[in-house]
Amino acid sequence: MSRKKVAIYGGSGYGGSELLRILLFHPEVELVFVTANEHAGKPIREVHKNLNGFTDLLFLPAPDDISTIDGVDLVFFALPHGQALNLIPQLPGGVKAIDLSGDFRIDEPDIFRKYYKLDHAGQIQAKFTYGLTETNRDAIKSAEYVANPGCFATATLLALAPLVKNGLISGKVVVDAKTGSSGSGAKPAANTHHPQRMNSFYAYKPFTHQHVPEIEQHLRQVGSFDTDLIFMTHSLPVSRGIFASCYLETSADLTKEDIGKIYSGFYEGSYFVRIVEGSPDINWVKTTNFCDIAFHTSGKQVVVFSAIDNLVKGAAGQAVQNMNLMFGFDETTGLRLPGTTP
Amino acid sequence: MSRKKVAIYGGSGYGGSELLRILLFHPEVELVFVTANEHAGKPIREVHKNLNGFTDLLFLPAPDDISTIDGVDLVFFALPHGQALNLIPQLPGGVKAIDLSGDFRIDEPDIFRKYYKLDHAGQIQAKFTYGLTETNRDAIKSAEYVANPGCFATATLLALAPLVKNGLISGKVVVDAKTGSSGSGAKPAANTHHPQRMNSFYAYKPFTHQHVPEIEQHLRQVGSFDTDLIFMTHSLPVSRGIFASCYLETSADLTKEDIGKIYSGFYEGSYFVRIVEGSPDINWVKTTNFCDIAFHTSGKQVVVFSAIDNLVKGAAGQAVQNMNLMFGFDETTGLRLPGTTP
Amino acid sequence: MSRKKVAIYGGSGYGGSELLRILLFHPEVELVFVTANEHAGKPIREVHKNLNGFTDLLFLPAPDDISTIDGVDLVFFALPHGQALNLIPQLPGGVKAIDLSGDFRIDEPDIFRKYYKLDHAGQIQAKFTYGLTETNRDAIKSAEYVANPGCFATATLLALAPLVKNGLISGKVVVDAKTGSSGSGAKPAANTHHPQRMNSFYAYKPFTHQHVPEIEQHLRQVGSFDTDLIFMTHSLPVSRGIFASCYLETSADLTKEDIGKIYSGFYEGSYFVRIVEGSPDINWVKTTNFCDIAFHTSGKQVVVFSAIDNLVKGAAGQAVQNMNLMFGFDETTGLRLPGTTP
Amino acid sequence: MSRKKVAIYGGSGYGGSELLRILLFHPEVELVFVTANEHAGKPIREVHKNLNGFTDLLFLPAPDDISTIDGVDLVFFALPHGQALNLIPQLPGGVKAIDLSGDFRIDEPDIFRKYYKLDHAGQIQAKFTYGLTETNRDAIKSAEYVANPGCFATATLLALAPLVKNGLISGKVVVDAKTGSSGSGAKPAANTHHPQRMNSFYAYKPFTHQHVPEIEQHLRQVGSFDTDLIFMTHSLPVSRGIFASCYLETSADLTKEDIGKIYSGFYEGSYFVRIVEGSPDINWVKTTNFCDIAFHTSGKQVVVFSAIDNLVKGAAGQAVQNMNLMFGFDETTGLRLPGTTP
Repeated sequence: MSRKKVAIYGGSGYGGSELLRILLFHPEVELVFVTANEHAGKPIREVHKNLNGFTDLLFLPAPDDISTIDGVDLVFFALPHGQALNLIPQLPGGVKAIDLSGDFRIDEPDIFRKYYKLDHAGQIQAKFTYGLTETNRDAIKSAEYVANPGCFATATLLALAPLVKNGLISGKVVVDAKTGSSGSGAKPAANTHHPQRMNSFYAYKPFTHQHVPEIEQHLRQVGSFDTDLIFMTHSLPVSRGIFASCYLETSADLTKEDIGKIYSGFYEGSYFVRIVEGSPDINWVKTTNFCDIAFHTSGKQVVVFSAIDNLVKGAAGQAVQNMNLMFGFDETTGLRLPGTTP
Repeated sequence: MSRKKVAIYGGSGYGGSELLRILLFHPEVELVFVTANEHAGKPIREVHKNLNGFTDLLFLPAPDDISTIDGVDLVFFALPHGQALNLIPQLPGGVKAIDLSGDFRIDEPDIFRKYYKLDHAGQIQAKFTYGLTETNRDAIKSAEYVANPGCFATATLLALAPLVKNGLISGKVVVDAKTGSSGSGAKPAANTHHPQRMNSFYAYKPFTHQHVPEIEQHLRQVGSFDTDLIFMTHSLPVSRGIFASCYLETSADLTKEDIGKIYSGFYEGSYFVRIVEGSPDINWVKTTNFCDIAFHTSGKQVVVFSAIDNLVKGAAGQAVQNMNLMFGFDETTGLRLPGTTP
Repeated sequence: MSRKKVAIYGGSGYGGSELLRILLFHPEVELVFVTANEHAGKPIREVHKNLNGFTDLLFLPAPDDISTIDGVDLVFFALPHGQALNLIPQLPGGVKAIDLSGDFRIDEPDIFRKYYKLDHAGQIQAKFTYGLTETNRDAIKSAEYVANPGCFATATLLALAPLVKNGLISGKVVVDAKTGSSGSGAKPAANTHHPQRMNSFYAYKPFTHQHVPEIEQHLRQVGSFDTDLIFMTHSLPVSRGIFASCYLETSADLTKEDIGKIYSGFYEGSYFVRIVEGSPDINWVKTTNFCDIAFHTSGKQVVVFSAIDNLVKGAAGQAVQNMNLMFGFDETTGLRLPGTTP
Repeated sequence: MSRKKVAIYGGSGYGGSELLRILLFHPEVELVFVTANEHAGKPIREVHKNLNGFTDLLFLPAPDDISTIDGVDLVFFALPHGQALNLIPQLPGGVKAIDLSGDFRIDEPDIFRKYYKLDHAGQIQAKFTYGLTETNRDAIKSAEYVANPGCFATATLLALAPLVKNGLISGKVVVDAKTGSSGSGAKPAANTHHPQRMNSFYAYKPFTHQHVPEIEQHLRQVGSFDTDLIFMTHSLPVSRGIFASCYLETSADLTKEDIGKIYSGFYEGSYFVRIVEGSPDINWVKTTNFCDIAFHTSGKQVVVFSAIDNLVKGAAGQAVQNMNLMFGFDETTGLRLPGTTP
């Protein structure tokens, strides 16, 4: 079987960089072109120096007219929010797409406008499948377009989905989420300025983060979720990693073992979710596509911890995992990459 | 007026080191002796190299019999948990004490035994005042012995006290707390091994941290607090700092401005509590005695953020603040130390 | 005696921030005004949040005409390179100045042009004294204008001066210097982007750093130095600190003890130079005005290590040390600030 | 062809951990057993949590009698210095060995004793080939036993070998080398205690590091090297990485282009050496087997920079590279692992 042909729009940011790190070694796909307007004409290895020795590909400018591209089976969009919104509707028929931005994650136009200050994609939105692989696997397999989940949303949803699916949550859920600095992207800014960030920990966007409606929408797809979600984002002085601490009350008396069975059952066959003892640690998932989850109980009070690499399971890795399903490959193809100790 | 004479038991750890950094420059006290059995006979400046140039004092062995020490007005105990328990009861009459360990923070013998695996101090416990300066100022002024609060307890209690005092919390409170690595002390251990810790974030002691009963006990002293406290501790890859995110629901409709007035009123005259916009940041309180607090609302849902330096406001700094009160000094004496940018 | 009146031009960068941290607590000076065009009208404490609680001063715009300022005894210039060049010549008579930039450090116009791409200050240059306090103390005491040394130059010169003064160096000197990220200033840039910098170490400006001519020029003032200086700069993933490793050969057989005597003698009375055993560590000088120095020998081969905080002894701290001398104060006034452990 | 069978002695340290990370995915070898006395009986994935999901192997105790092991083609020794010294001489005939410690790197018994405080291995030493792959490739191909180079030695030798080989160095060479904290091993110690190390940079073992004789010995094998080597080691606050700055004078007038040709020629066919512009950066080699090299000239003065990951090219990666040669595989087999951005 010949390899599937894929392209990347937006290859110079951290999402694009991680797509490249994975796809260049993927045994079933061929990388046809990678755009990066700012670096057009430059070898990829000069921008992503970790890839020096692995590719001679050049960054290309984005094609003038995306509707005329051919010889491509699937396009990854790793562009700033708002740009794929106009591009994907023009894709030629038969070309699949995975969008790593937030442009197609929210179904409700009003909510989308409130959080993204953009007009909704309209009818094309109906063609998008939400790409949280472990909860939406079957739909993704037959999807034409996938809206890849946000990094915080991925960590939170994987932590909560088994209990929501089983209708076991009572009352509000509090999620205290923390992200590494790469979550702010490859462009230098005040909040990622090293002299300050290395000793910082702070909260941001209280009650207003754009992943809140994304999480709520998908929890309602997973099961019945009609309670309050209190979701707070914080900044960690690491480069990579998201850690979510999820606090909730169960609607029934459940032991830790009961919960263990629920999670093991829910994630059976999900290679990239590892149930661990004690606590996950960002250190053990960094640079990998794993989501490590642990939970503890005290009476009906439950805490679920989850940890992912924001750029891999929270972005590029999950995108490739979804691509694997869309092409009928094993979902772990090209993604069985171990982390490192230390 | 002659200077007050103070001594330190346990000067080689991080708590002792910070006591030294502050007390050596305190205009109203004289440091009479500092013990450190492991380093007895060694110049302090060789152990705490930051003090090179500031003192020629030597570490001394702990006196054989503490009941015979004289010429000392107050002793700071910065020893591992369990050691002050036997020492303070033997202090000569008239010698005040401030204990930085958990030995005298818990009134109930059963709870103390459960969390510390030690037998309670018994009657002497009644002589101890809990040393959260801002909530217990008057009692501390006349205290003979002060149990200095835990670092997590300090950050959490200062965040919650104004609402508890005013009876404004309804239902459970979730506190997601994070600490820097110096919170584990000066002795190397697996969880503070640099190659791993620098990229780590993880949770520990879920539902079982020894500061839980301390926080609950004091909240009940501050106001009426009969609800659940869900308290979780995490490890941050910074050296210094605690950040607490406190989630709660108010029993009344309160705007952010209403809450602002409550906090401003509660902390009027409290120099070391700074109400800030947006979020506190560990970066702005490190090496200082400040506690920075911010809050946000969404309907009745409230989040309160607080940040302190675990070794200063969370230990040595607050201990000196309490000493100032016990000696009748202005509580900020020797403690108006600014942090640094960056 | 009334306090001396000082002003700061350029108070929003890291140099300005550290000047503020020191001068606000200096017992002998009064801060008259602080300019920061970008933040004009804003409270200083909102920009430098570490100073929240310590000052209500506002940043002001730079005066239209510096020649008309009055009521000021001395002005600190902490502006980007090139700006003080035009301002200081217009200062009213009798107003002293300390410039923290490189504008007035180089005597030779051709060398200045080569390294700074600017035209030389001309005759006013003759009024400038190079402000390496420990080697130039007497000249500084009577100076009208002081060119405060560069951070790398300070660390290197203090390491080499005792041997150069005594004519004991034979052949070329290699200096391998490393700086923390705050050396790049407060403005975010690619090389200080946290996700990358936290795991980086690299060299930059090989053989071409602008501190090379500054070091050479001053070594020739200190003693006879007519040999090659190989000087290389590297970037460390810490916020603060410079560490210089200086490799040289002595022209005579000297034991470590001999060298010890030379350094002790040279730095007698220099409070801020500490000769230490083994190696200095950035950790012990950060946030302080100290320069820690150690040396080792192997036959005639000698290595001298020095460590400073680039923003304090390498900038603002040394500037205040120089101001103290210019005003006839003890040179340590306001600068006996200890670092912290950890 | 059936897979080669390999074993690891000492699988719980950082060297062992990296051998596992590479060998578990190596297409041509089978891991027969891995010893770790301290963790005997425990699943490897519980000790090296990055390998959770990749192996169910258990750590085994070291066999009582190594002379009776069979079914093994090659043994890696990743034990503390001094232990392989007694084990390898007892290996059954036909079993190859690669030792990652310093036990067999030094040919001269007196020098070995001076630096390692151990008695020399005696006649068996003659069977050892020094495993710097790029300079010793042919000898390694037919080697029975390989002494894998030290991490500092690897970075230094790869930087200097092309010039030494061509006899182009005149006078002494100064090497200023810096290592990340993982170089101190997996066992917590004062110098790797996170609260201090994260803000530290310091020198250690001045003039006495045990890699000095190793470097000198191999430089004399590579070409004629009879000059002084000044070699200094420093500690960086990163987890992984070594950076060496090598200062030397050429015996002939060479432009940067001349040197470029020498290095390109010398490293032709050496996949893992990348000649880069400007400076290498630890960030681009971490977790990989690459050695990045750059050089600059100023007249006859030359600086050569090299960067490696101390645990990969400086230990486990190079060991596998050598194994590949000893088994007749392509030397890059199992080692074409890209690093990450950021």
